[in-house]
Amino acid sequence: MTTDLHSFLTTAKARQLDELIAWLRIPSISTLSAHKPDVLAAAQWLVANLQQSGLEHVTLIETAGHPMVYADWLHAGADKPTVLIYGHYDVQPVDPLDLWQTPPFEPTIRTGRHGDDLFARGASDDKGQTFIHVKAVEALLQATGTLPVNVKFLIEGEEEVGSSAISAYVPAHTAQLAADLCLISDTGMLAPDIPVITYGLRGGWFCEITVTGPAHDLHSGMYGGATHNPNQALCELLAALHDAEGRVTVPGFYDRVQELSPAERALLAQVPYGEAQLLADNGAPAAYGEAAYSVVERIGARPTLEINGMWGGFTGEGSKTVIPSQAHAKISCRLVPDQDPVEIAQLIEAHLQRLAPPTIKVEVRGRAGGRAYVAPIDSPEIQLAAAAYTQVFGVAPLYKREGGGIPIVPKFQAALNVPVVLMGFGLPDDNLHAPNEKFHLPNFYRGIQTSIAFLQGLGV
Amino acid sequence: MTTDLHSFLTTAKARQLDELIAWLRIPSISTLSAHKPDVLAAAQWLVANLQQSGLEHVTLIETAGHPMVYADWLHAGADKPTVLIYGHYDVQPVDPLDLWQTPPFEPTIRTGRHGDDLFARGASDDKGQTFIHVKAVEALLQATGTLPVNVKFLIEGEEEVGSSAISAYVPAHTAQLAADLCLISDTGMLAPDIPVITYGLRGGWFCEITVTGPAHDLHSGMYGGATHNPNQALCELLAALHDAEGRVTVPGFYDRVQELSPAERALLAQVPYGEAQLLADNGAPAAYGEAAYSVVERIGARPTLEINGMWGGFTGEGSKTVIPSQAHAKISCRLVPDQDPVEIAQLIEAHLQRLAPPTIKVEVRGRAGGRAYVAPIDSPEIQLAAAAYTQVFGVAPLYKREGGGIPIVPKFQAALNVPVVLMGFGLPDDNLHAPNEKFHLPNFYRGIQTSIAFLQGLGV
Repeated sequence: MTTDLHSFLTTAKARQLDELIAWLRIPSISTLSAHKPDVLAAAQWLVANLQQSGLEHVTLIETAGHPMVYADWLHAGADKPTVLIYGHYDVQPVDPLDLWQTPPFEPTIRTGRHGDDLFARGASDDKGQTFIHVKAVEALLQATGTLPVNVKFLIEGEEEVGSSAISAYVPAHTAQLAADLCLISDTGMLAPDIPVITYGLRGGWFCEITVTGPAHDLHSGMYGGATHNPNQALCELLAALHDAEGRVTVPGFYDRVQELSPAERALLAQVPYGEAQLLADNGAPAAYGEAAYSVVERIGARPTLEINGMWGGFTGEGSKTVIPSQAHAKISCRLVPDQDPVEIAQLIEAHLQRLAPPTIKVEVRGRAGGRAYVAPIDSPEIQLAAAAYTQVFGVAPLYKREGGGIPIVPKFQAALNVPVVLMGFGLPDDNLHAPNEKFHLPNFYRGIQTSIAFLQGLGV
Repeated sequence: MTTDLHSFLTTAKARQLDELIAWLRIPSISTLSAHKPDVLAAAQWLVANLQQSGLEHVTLIETAGHPMVYADWLHAGADKPTVLIYGHYDVQPVDPLDLWQTPPFEPTIRTGRHGDDLFARGASDDKGQTFIHVKAVEALLQATGTLPVNVKFLIEGEEEVGSSAISAYVPAHTAQLAADLCLISDTGMLAPDIPVITYGLRGGWFCEITVTGPAHDLHSGMYGGATHNPNQALCELLAALHDAEGRVTVPGFYDRVQELSPAERALLAQVPYGEAQLLADNGAPAAYGEAAYSVVERIGARPTLEINGMWGGFTGEGSKTVIPSQAHAKISCRLVPDQDPVEIAQLIEAHLQRLAPPTIKVEVRGRAGGRAYVAPIDSPEIQLAAAAYTQVFGVAPLYKREGGGIPIVPKFQAALNVPVVLMGFGLPDDNLHAPNEKFHLPNFYRGIQTSIAFLQGLGV
């Protein structure tokens, strides 16, 4: 790194953090319609920041849902590669709110074991990680007057609700988005000093299940014993979806799952993350899942079915001896290659209808999700990303599959025919989608340096 | 009935209804602390009405929870029996509010197939039925200047939350409450022209179950597959509490259950209520429960375990791919002779702890309920009640066991050593504990006449 660049970054640190904090103050919760104006405000804030950072053609792209933001800088020359940088500025809901130590949209710095952490919804997922690349490009442009590669940004506001608008936009704008690779930071490292390149992502699928029994709520004394309680029926259905080992029992669920090769299992075995670390992170009494697979494999390379939410009957203070008319659940799957979300939806719905007794009706309202993604580890892009990590962190990254998904990744691959590089700067205890989400601030600053090193490596 | 009494009742009808409507306007929901002032207001309203009706020693009895109301009239003579009339003025919560056709505390008359129905929370359970006896005593006092028996009223405000204060009060005030029988209207008939004497009530027990897995909510992508989801674990626990036929699988649950005698089964078989009527009332797709027992037996004479409410994870709009830290359920049992609520609580908690896998923790917070009650059908009091029904309705009542419970009944029996007569005027479609609760107004007026006939019969 040149002296100019080093000096710029040193001077810029406080301002970069202030800017990130300002962005995090905007409650851009994409799934709640009441927050639609906030989602727009977060997009407009990004437009202004990209302009100040030196990007060109900065555009707010309106959609049927939440807007996207596009920007570029294309003066590196036709012989230099073009990097499409993706991120998202929308965030998850914040409930249960009472478990937050400080309010989710009042970003707060607290000093932890490894340094300062910035607590806020979206700090790590994904405003903080997206902002790394904005500030890397700003630093290069302002300290050196140029970029080593051509850069395009496409930042969406619907990642937490299925990436609907961008999924339609990308295949329809392949010329505007044409690139040599796609760079995304929406994944994690293993620890503050153990960088990781994620070469696989799980896909996903989501549905809501409604069980209806009686036509209206009933007094459990007057009808109990002769009426199938929908809460009970829902529990019976949902309990039948896993066996005692945690395998999903839906017939056909595993039919298309690629088994791991011995070589890949050996690579994943290098990741220093097992039951002890899992339990330290999640605070559960014991680990769970398929005994034939390691924790890293269960999370990254095996599919799951989760009950994300359920409710039925009286849930208020005190007691009410009711048999409810309906009970509800929100279910989602994490999928691996080569599971097809559409087929999985059909298998699950058919299985639930097969399990449903005549005493109740089951309705499944599903939404197709994204397929899983696995990249070749030995590609030049991934090796350059590894070199950038090694330069900044002083240690070579490990390789892993992430358990989460980024719905747009398989769509970028398909529409733009580009390799996708996932450079993550989150940590396992960042509390994504949970109370007290945080971003480790040393990772923010090192992330900016790693992004600079990667872009410089690509431009050589 | 004398001409004076008949003429008084004819003139009084509109006023009696206006008074009931005024009482029903007061939202005396005992389980919600925000409604504590309303519960008090409903008690104060009753005090005033009892005074206007000619009762003496009308007293609002303060308690640690909601107040009771006492009143008496003891001038019939020492040779006449004393009747203790019990009722309750507290009501159930009203959610889901959007399913009410008219607001629960704006009493509204709509004309149904069999006549006018009064829709309001508490209309049937139990303000309307309690008020029958207040207005019967008023009519006798005002039209005849006397009562054929001595009368005491004890009306509580905690029936829907476990009858805590009255349970302590009754055994401590046996002299004040001394009586020859106890009269309660908090049960039902089979149809507007089929009166019923209920000779059995189920007991009850209630608990809340909390399943805790991870220490905080988790991202289902980052932890799913290696973490036991508490929603799933709760479903697995709750689904294991019934077999496929609807029998409760808790070991020991049925050990103390009295089997029905052939004679009692023959009596219950006269009740014209089977699967077709059940499904017409509850609107469910099919009947449920123990095939070896009739619907009437399943509801009245067999114990149950119901999931009255459950909740966990994300239940708002849209999706959130979370593994929650906790999942919750509210469970209640209906008990029959000779099940002991305290023992049942221990059996259920022990069974849940036995079922709980090492991946989660289970906490059960229980509350002892009331025992079941069964009365001898051939006692003089019950035969006089039958005669009163026959006189007013023109048809002899049937006999049944009610599926619900009245927690105070076994306690009256134990503390005061009195027989309890349950004269019900509710109907199966009164929507107790549910939206659109109603009271059939012809039953209100015939109820007043039946109460008068019964008191007159007792005084002969």
